[in-house]
Amino acid sequence: MDQSQAKQTHPPWPACPVPINDHGVIEVAHGGGGRKTHQLIASVFIEAFGDPLQTLGHDGAVFTPGAEQLAITTDSYVVDPIEFPGGDIGAMSVHGTANDLLMCGAQPKYLSAAFVLEAGLPLAILRRITASMRCAADEAGVTIVTGDTKVIQSDRGDGMTITTTGIGQVIARTPIGPAQVSDGSAIIVSGDLGRHGIAVMCAREQLDLGNAIHSDSACLAPAVLPLLDAGLPVQCLRDLTRGGLATALVEIAQSGQVDIEIDEQAVPINETVRGACELLGLDPLYVANEGRFIVILPEDQAEHAIALLQTTDFARDARVIGRVTQGKGNVSARTAIGTRRVIDMISGEQLPRIC
Amino acid sequence: MDQSQAKQTHPPWPACPVPINDHGVIEVAHGGGGRKTHQLIASVFIEAFGDPLQTLGHDGAVFTPGAEQLAITTDSYVVDPIEFPGGDIGAMSVHGTANDLLMCGAQPKYLSAAFVLEAGLPLAILRRITASMRCAADEAGVTIVTGDTKVIQSDRGDGMTITTTGIGQVIARTPIGPAQVSDGSAIIVSGDLGRHGIAVMCAREQLDLGNAIHSDSACLAPAVLPLLDAGLPVQCLRDLTRGGLATALVEIAQSGQVDIEIDEQAVPINETVRGACELLGLDPLYVANEGRFIVILPEDQAEHAIALLQTTDFARDARVIGRVTQGKGNVSARTAIGTRRVIDMISGEQLPRIC
Repeated sequence: MDQSQAKQTHPPWPACPVPINDHGVIEVAHGGGGRKTHQLIASVFIEAFGDPLQTLGHDGAVFTPGAEQLAITTDSYVVDPIEFPGGDIGAMSVHGTANDLLMCGAQPKYLSAAFVLEAGLPLAILRRITASMRCAADEAGVTIVTGDTKVIQSDRGDGMTITTTGIGQVIARTPIGPAQVSDGSAIIVSGDLGRHGIAVMCAREQLDLGNAIHSDSACLAPAVLPLLDAGLPVQCLRDLTRGGLATALVEIAQSGQVDIEIDEQAVPINETVRGACELLGLDPLYVANEGRFIVILPEDQAEHAIALLQTTDFARDARVIGRVTQGKGNVSARTAIGTRRVIDMISGEQLPRIC
Repeated sequence: MDQSQAKQTHPPWPACPVPINDHGVIEVAHGGGGRKTHQLIASVFIEAFGDPLQTLGHDGAVFTPGAEQLAITTDSYVVDPIEFPGGDIGAMSVHGTANDLLMCGAQPKYLSAAFVLEAGLPLAILRRITASMRCAADEAGVTIVTGDTKVIQSDRGDGMTITTTGIGQVIARTPIGPAQVSDGSAIIVSGDLGRHGIAVMCAREQLDLGNAIHSDSACLAPAVLPLLDAGLPVQCLRDLTRGGLATALVEIAQSGQVDIEIDEQAVPINETVRGACELLGLDPLYVANEGRFIVILPEDQAEHAIALLQTTDFARDARVIGRVTQGKGNVSARTAIGTRRVIDMISGEQLPRIC
């Protein structure tokens, strides 16, 4: 199923009155800490995010954790362009950070959001991005509780960086991470790979593939939480962002000191994505995703996990693609013609500013 | 006392072996998530920050809060140039976020650090900045537990943005914030104003004032924690960063719906800073500081608070500069010639990219 279908059912952000001129652009003065900064906070950020802890005008927020263990994660998002088919930098900054918490076995609870805006950015775009963040936050069940805004000079004036930091309550009953991965475990991927990277690349280069690819950007809570709630003995979770499936597998194999073998033919890849990768000279196993992840757990639990995953829109194509064996950190793939190729980290970057 | 004296006693960061070429520069590939990203994390970030929760290679960190209430705050730092007399973007990103937690009545505990690096940035500079962050974190008693790195193309290749998010344990026995401020309370400033803004401005414009001004950038824990530990009835704390003293007072007066009157002659300002402000046409009350704050508490507690503050290097010049009266959010200053001037937020920005 095309994730973008699900994304497009988001209501356009509804009841935003427009107290400041939406035809304006971000000025350096919006970053000065004075009247214009306060106007921006009130008319854009508080409009979009509300002020749940009555603290967005303050420099920090106070909350009661109510859990024995918390998880914390942070990411800066520098995607170019900031709006692309199936998503934008705002939703992505919520999805990505919520997903990193889920990958720690934690339920996302609170987010901070720090914006570095380019002077010249149209306010109407900033408003779209913040509305999109709010939608994404509501869907993910997280609350944006504190933030910051800076403005920098720029030649282009069409960009922004958003850094989100997330706090989540650890709900996994056992530790989750590469160190837990053991010989004989199955590797399940939640869906087809490469949509996000190809969608952003096509938007940036204005490539028309005929059959447009939408980013898979999504919060994975509906797919991950049922696995944890069911008490499945999940050993490791990893979202397949920058560096794609290949890099995630190498990181896990090296950290966990195991070998991993995947069946390349079992890895689901959409035909248009595969065609774009061939055209652009990219290996889809290394292309970034923003709504795909892998689950590693004992082989005899794989069927149960897949059944749970397939009940959600974001993991309908979940399947086993490989297994863990004893070893020393090597990853390999069985190819279509029966040979075996080594999967390693790439030294450089296939697509810069993709996440 | 010149804060920079205290800063200069920092040991240069000692035992950093140099496993990758320090003469290199940041390349786009360092942001790709592959081998070069991992090398950068291992040889720069883990070298500098350690890996206290064994998670810097992972996407998030898990911690046990051990407190009923936590505070969270975030800030992006975009200062230009990234190194200036008395500080740098790294130390400042730790000080500023730790200080925002302290201003919430919380003891800083954990930090996340997200870097957006310009391609072309010399690795030697990145290493200095991360070493400086580690020193600042050790001094502030905070642990850097998770992070992120992205690389963007840039014409200049000499910059970076750091976004730090801080988690602290609330130790204040009563709520702290503008809503708590009451009629008759005293306003205490911790030291002389304007050093940070003038130091950065002079470094950027290569102005030589004869008597060099160093930034006041510092973690305020040694000055703030004794006030909280002593159980003083602190109503509000505010660090005087972007927008300076004037903007902080207007924010507090408006949020707390009180009037504030200060005695302009009582506000300590170094003579060189005052001269630079006159030269540059700046009002020192609006210039940014990174190691100055105000305390608002009942007038009969002011003497006790000042005695405690003056025992620390960072608040030796602490003094009362004004008081809170009933009102509706107006701030005014009694001038040297006995007149009264209205203090308001400025609409723009005096000095962009100062914090």
